[in-house]
Amino acid sequence: MQEPIITLLTDFGERDPYVGAIKGVILSICPQAKIIDLSHDIEKHNIYEGALFLYSMIKYFPKHTIHLVVIDPGVGSKRKSLILQTDNYFLVGPDNGVLSLAPINDKIQKVFEITNSTYFLQPVSDTFHGRDIFAPVAAHLANNRAPEKFGPLIEDWIRIEIPKPRINTAEIHGEIIHIDKFGNLITNIPRDIVQKRDGLQPKYIQIKIRDRELEILLCSSYTQVGIGEFLAIFGSTNFLEISKNQENAADALNIKVQEKVSVKRPFT
Amino acid sequence: MQEPIITLLTDFGERDPYVGAIKGVILSICPQAKIIDLSHDIEKHNIYEGALFLYSMIKYFPKHTIHLVVIDPGVGSKRKSLILQTDNYFLVGPDNGVLSLAPINDKIQKVFEITNSTYFLQPVSDTFHGRDIFAPVAAHLANNRAPEKFGPLIEDWIRIEIPKPRINTAEIHGEIIHIDKFGNLITNIPRDIVQKRDGLQPKYIQIKIRDRELEILLCSSYTQVGIGEFLAIFGSTNFLEISKNQENAADALNIKVQEKVSVKRPFT
Amino acid sequence: MQEPIITLLTDFGERDPYVGAIKGVILSICPQAKIIDLSHDIEKHNIYEGALFLYSMIKYFPKHTIHLVVIDPGVGSKRKSLILQTDNYFLVGPDNGVLSLAPINDKIQKVFEITNSTYFLQPVSDTFHGRDIFAPVAAHLANNRAPEKFGPLIEDWIRIEIPKPRINTAEIHGEIIHIDKFGNLITNIPRDIVQKRDGLQPKYIQIKIRDRELEILLCSSYTQVGIGEFLAIFGSTNFLEISKNQENAADALNIKVQEKVSVKRPFT
Repeated sequence: MQEPIITLLTDFGERDPYVGAIKGVILSICPQAKIIDLSHDIEKHNIYEGALFLYSMIKYFPKHTIHLVVIDPGVGSKRKSLILQTDNYFLVGPDNGVLSLAPINDKIQKVFEITNSTYFLQPVSDTFHGRDIFAPVAAHLANNRAPEKFGPLIEDWIRIEIPKPRINTAEIHGEIIHIDKFGNLITNIPRDIVQKRDGLQPKYIQIKIRDRELEILLCSSYTQVGIGEFLAIFGSTNFLEISKNQENAADALNIKVQEKVSVKRPFT
Repeated sequence: MQEPIITLLTDFGERDPYVGAIKGVILSICPQAKIIDLSHDIEKHNIYEGALFLYSMIKYFPKHTIHLVVIDPGVGSKRKSLILQTDNYFLVGPDNGVLSLAPINDKIQKVFEITNSTYFLQPVSDTFHGRDIFAPVAAHLANNRAPEKFGPLIEDWIRIEIPKPRINTAEIHGEIIHIDKFGNLITNIPRDIVQKRDGLQPKYIQIKIRDRELEILLCSSYTQVGIGEFLAIFGSTNFLEISKNQENAADALNIKVQEKVSVKRPFT
Repeated sequence: MQEPIITLLTDFGERDPYVGAIKGVILSICPQAKIIDLSHDIEKHNIYEGALFLYSMIKYFPKHTIHLVVIDPGVGSKRKSLILQTDNYFLVGPDNGVLSLAPINDKIQKVFEITNSTYFLQPVSDTFHGRDIFAPVAAHLANNRAPEKFGPLIEDWIRIEIPKPRINTAEIHGEIIHIDKFGNLITNIPRDIVQKRDGLQPKYIQIKIRDRELEILLCSSYTQVGIGEFLAIFGSTNFLEISKNQENAADALNIKVQEKVSVKRPFT
């Protein structure tokens, strides 16, 4: 029989024993689980970064994967603990929005509040629900325990959103929602609004970001421009990205996440 | 049949090929091993940090887990190589104290010195026993080889200790034994000595650390104080921790590991 | 039946969703794959560092392991995609040299260019062949798909080389090819050219590096000199290394990769 897959996404880093404790709890309950590290290097307490991470890659996982997410600045407060059941996956984690972007392309079937302490590690701490609540729940789900067992269906839970760009006749006003290790600037501007009146993709786009105005080639590959040249490209999540071939666009332009960017319209 | 679990804890980092070599050696001997990364980011040569890490999370793993620890500044010297057999686990690593805190809550049954070179990778280097000695021994243990096969029982091996706080009528004198990624300051002061004469937990505690005196709420959750406020809390290993809700207490107080901390007595 | 092993070596870091996407793609095609992280912290775009990493540890893996390497600054250009079939392994990755050092000790049987888009994730991006081409190919190989299925045999592909030291009567002129986390300086000088006329190993060697001349003990273990003393040693890949016992030789000598080093001859 196929081993159940549990992925881990946290902001715990790798120097502290927290991730190890979670792995131990999972394997104690479901020894056959295949634990897959996604990342433990999400910025501390950055719910939005975690949500966007999960959104970007979740669809590549096989059906029935259980995604365990622990980015939880409100641990011990009255925030709920959740199981999201989507068409393809279970998502387990805190009710702070971190789970809420992932199901954009994967219809939510049911949302459960985790309340049944039968399945918790006892005593439950108020500082580490990742270990005491989320890990055991994920492991019991991997053991084919029905999600109904963990608590009631709820309707009211926290969703965050990727900010929508504003469009007027002269410009698209967006922002940088992520900067990757390579310094690529990922915007919130989707592919379908960057097109000419005939529906075709423009050859060049003109952007304003900080104090710079750039006219850059809209490429399908980094290597269509010379090394060190700026380019625009639609990345793996179909958002417009601003890159510098084999160099770091974020450093060159001195950009941080949430920086505003505008793109000139209409496209010609 | 259940796959054997081998955890890895090292100070090798992730940029060098050392961890990869260890994983290859394990899988060559025991292809069905389930290898679980605990951390490879223990500070270089920091035996105490590694020992404390293992102590903090080992109990969450299922019985029969094999824990392989390679923090080994004395590799190639006359230091021994060890198998610790506890009630629940095997621990494999160098005899420098790094294995010695983990069994505090898990009775040691037997300690073996690894001497039987039949099980070593040949030729054995004097620079990388993690690959040439500890990894193959862990993998053979995972193949159900009896620990007696690897060498003689010994009594004399190196133990380190978590320093005990000193208590007088006016103060508890402790120290910071770990600082986590979130900047939480973990002390060596256990829960059972922080109580009032009636055995109850005090509401506030007064601490001195560096040049600061703080009166802080003793909480059960970070969220009982406002964002940015200091709090005291008993963490996942039941030691007193000094934290700042959603901020970094270590940075705010400019604290490093081994900093002294004192807590005022008697508690009121 | 034995689970197939797929190792991952990338320069993606752990904060972005790229490695997670690759793992998801692999498990969707070959759910029983045992995914082993080698490193995701190769320096961005550093083909040589990746090639040397793989060369240093590949031989420790069991026969039939599939090694997936994604260090790919030329993604989307006309560079080929490759499967290298060696006596023991499959190597999958871009044709930029990153795969070419690993087979030095493991005879290459056949090299295939990956062209059969039947096996690709559709649509194939021009920015992320790791996810869209290499991961599915590795997973199909793990499913025992024959390498011939993915494209034609080729002869012409890119090899890089570890630079050879130059030897004259007075000196061996080499360079630093890697610096590890511990600050050990790994040179390109192999063991077999550091010997006396009688074939024995010299006791001391005299090296020049930057503005320093050092006469240092040639050891078999770091602990043969005092803490903080320099030593020379043959490391795990049989290249001469310059180290400082329990300290950082690279920092002490202010050395970066590619620094020249010369060793005095003849050995006495």
